[in-house]
Amino acid sequence: MNAVEIIKKKRDGLQLSAGEIQFIVQGYTSGDIPDYQASAFLMAAFLKGLNTEETAHLTSAMLNSGSKLDLSRIDGVKVDKHSTGGVGDKTSLILAPIAAAAGVKVPMISGRGLGHTGGTLDKLESIPGFRTDIPVERAIEILQKTGAVLIGQTKEIAPADKLFYALRDVTATVESIPLITASIMSKKLAEDISGLVMDVKTGSGAFMKNFHDASRLAESLAFTANKLGVDVHCFITNMDRPLGDYVGNWLEVVESIKILRGELKNDLSELSLSLAASMIELAGIASSGAESIKIAERTIADGSAFEKFIEIAALQGAETEFLRQPERYPKAAASVICDSPEEGFISNMDTYGIGMAALHAGAGRFKKEDSIDPSAGIIFYKKTGQFVRKGEQICEVFSGSMQLAEKAAVMIMESISFSASDPEPGDIILSRKFYPAVK
Amino acid sequence: MNAVEIIKKKRDGLQLSAGEIQFIVQGYTSGDIPDYQASAFLMAAFLKGLNTEETAHLTSAMLNSGSKLDLSRIDGVKVDKHSTGGVGDKTSLILAPIAAAAGVKVPMISGRGLGHTGGTLDKLESIPGFRTDIPVERAIEILQKTGAVLIGQTKEIAPADKLFYALRDVTATVESIPLITASIMSKKLAEDISGLVMDVKTGSGAFMKNFHDASRLAESLAFTANKLGVDVHCFITNMDRPLGDYVGNWLEVVESIKILRGELKNDLSELSLSLAASMIELAGIASSGAESIKIAERTIADGSAFEKFIEIAALQGAETEFLRQPERYPKAAASVICDSPEEGFISNMDTYGIGMAALHAGAGRFKKEDSIDPSAGIIFYKKTGQFVRKGEQICEVFSGSMQLAEKAAVMIMESISFSASDPEPGDIILSRKFYPAVK
Repeated sequence: MNAVEIIKKKRDGLQLSAGEIQFIVQGYTSGDIPDYQASAFLMAAFLKGLNTEETAHLTSAMLNSGSKLDLSRIDGVKVDKHSTGGVGDKTSLILAPIAAAAGVKVPMISGRGLGHTGGTLDKLESIPGFRTDIPVERAIEILQKTGAVLIGQTKEIAPADKLFYALRDVTATVESIPLITASIMSKKLAEDISGLVMDVKTGSGAFMKNFHDASRLAESLAFTANKLGVDVHCFITNMDRPLGDYVGNWLEVVESIKILRGELKNDLSELSLSLAASMIELAGIASSGAESIKIAERTIADGSAFEKFIEIAALQGAETEFLRQPERYPKAAASVICDSPEEGFISNMDTYGIGMAALHAGAGRFKKEDSIDPSAGIIFYKKTGQFVRKGEQICEVFSGSMQLAEKAAVMIMESISFSASDPEPGDIILSRKFYPAVK
Repeated sequence: MNAVEIIKKKRDGLQLSAGEIQFIVQGYTSGDIPDYQASAFLMAAFLKGLNTEETAHLTSAMLNSGSKLDLSRIDGVKVDKHSTGGVGDKTSLILAPIAAAAGVKVPMISGRGLGHTGGTLDKLESIPGFRTDIPVERAIEILQKTGAVLIGQTKEIAPADKLFYALRDVTATVESIPLITASIMSKKLAEDISGLVMDVKTGSGAFMKNFHDASRLAESLAFTANKLGVDVHCFITNMDRPLGDYVGNWLEVVESIKILRGELKNDLSELSLSLAASMIELAGIASSGAESIKIAERTIADGSAFEKFIEIAALQGAETEFLRQPERYPKAAASVICDSPEEGFISNMDTYGIGMAALHAGAGRFKKEDSIDPSAGIIFYKKTGQFVRKGEQICEVFSGSMQLAEKAAVMIMESISFSASDPEPGDIILSRKFYPAVK
């Protein structure tokens, strides 16, 4: 077997075997295959595609390039959720405690935000004391004790993905559904889970701008996980507006607390409960969708989900008084209120633009090395489909300086359109489907 | 401008500008663009293609990465011939003296053989004393004096092509018509010629196995040269049988001498005269095809072409007594005669197999570093379309050892098929067309 023959085969549109894909992944990870052959392979795969078999082989080879969690000594069914990322997407903070309170085991490994989207790790780390870089053995203990743990990637997980991802970034081979699938799944399946809830976002704030592309990614992710023995419940959800009313790291923790306490009902609470219910169903704790949603709702109503959040946070080092009394958290240095320039319905929110505004306010990173301002962000009082009078407050922007807050405010208002008639924005959940594992 | 954006544009099938292509070529040549970006670019270009504009820009950028001959002080029209390579293709040795004897200036830069095809430099260097590595200034003097000079590539010519070619070889991006075109033309147009005769081979002994692919390559080569100001006369010729009767370096010199002396008429003499006539026509020395062929034939009949060959060879250091008396050349150590195993017509000669047999006999190179045996090769007494009786001699193989000669003989006979009826082999020249330069 040699790299040139394998590249040639993919270049000519032929299907690669598991062994051929493994040869490329192992060879590149060990340094035996040089960058220039890996990049020719990636471009050929980008343009000629990888079918579901090949995508599963690539995922498997990248997964096996590193180590996996070993959760065999943990009782119960291990289920996680993965989102393809969006603006205001803090469902992990809400559904992990709900699912754990319902008896699911949730070994969640998350990433950081980059560009216009936030990252779960950054949101968690805005809680004073909260550690996401805890050793694997300790993480497994926390999972056993509380039913959930929320940590970051370790360098032992899928090292091949790190190498390939860095190469894709500089060779124009990022936007490929099979390559995205293998990258996501090689990390996710290292969690030793048997069920996965996928939340594939579509719309102006998502990587997949339209429903068709989101559906293709959803199927690719689900089929790949299925082939590697994992049941999947896959949602496609609306990212044509920010999810929930709060955007920015600590602000999103606050909104999560409100929902876990049952104080707020909105698109975010609806989606979080639905995703958590699917996790409960995948874990076999409920036998129907209706039953699982009842179980999820009960954990909010009886306070067990919020207490579970406190319990997890405490075990991960958090100063939990900030979670019980969010008002004690340091306020942002500057804030600006955005008033509506006209009367009418909010007809559209360019969610990418809003994500970029939050980034400029200090809530995100332009480069991996940047630090973030945990207090920075936006609270929306009105979203798509709501009627506003001229001068009525649409949102409030929080930042480290008045200059940054004002710049972000301008960007937000440039992202919002108005119309005389109700635009009738669609549901938050656009589709959902169950994909059983291949046994 | 940045490499990732340019790669992305080609990946998405968009047309690149001259500036973008130059950015990649210059950047890779200077080391500013790494291998892995160059290889992603090559794979995207391979799969999405380059149109004639882009191919001309790529050729131009590679040509301009190095230096060109400056023949401005040489009177007369400079015309060369380029062949895409085949088995027994020694037309350069015949047409350069014919064209020079007719008054054309022929600044010919040739390559070496690799794999199943021979190279003009190796054939010339089988002549004792003949030097092809002469300094550019001296080469221009010889050209001025005799009307032709036959030299090898210098490292100053198209260094970008050398880098890209080495990278294509290890990234499965060799067999691309636009990339092949740019590679050939960036070197050929460094000769400062205003006319070029192209001989694109097709058939079992050629790189282009069928007429359709050969036509596409021919058009691509011609259009590119035209855009860069060069008139082209393009032939597509038959390589389903060896060209001429002799294969192997010194043996091909001998066949060339016979033709230059008017002692042999066959497919090789027909093609060599036609190619030389086109050069004479491109140089404006004749105003019609009929007139140019007469001029070419006259240089044979009056001995001026053969004397021109001696003159050029002498100026390039050759011991010309071997050219005047080829029988003085050292004989090969071993030879084997191949008899026909049956009675019938030779219906097919797998010319790739015959090229490989010559290589095994010692006439070619498996790797660039290999040395060749100048006496090794094959003389054919019968070729496709001829009738043979059982036991009649088909060919004779010459080699450094009986073992190698016998191995080659077996390979040759495995490459030859017989039939009861006349297969009526086609003409040597399959098509010819004039492509005027874009002024």
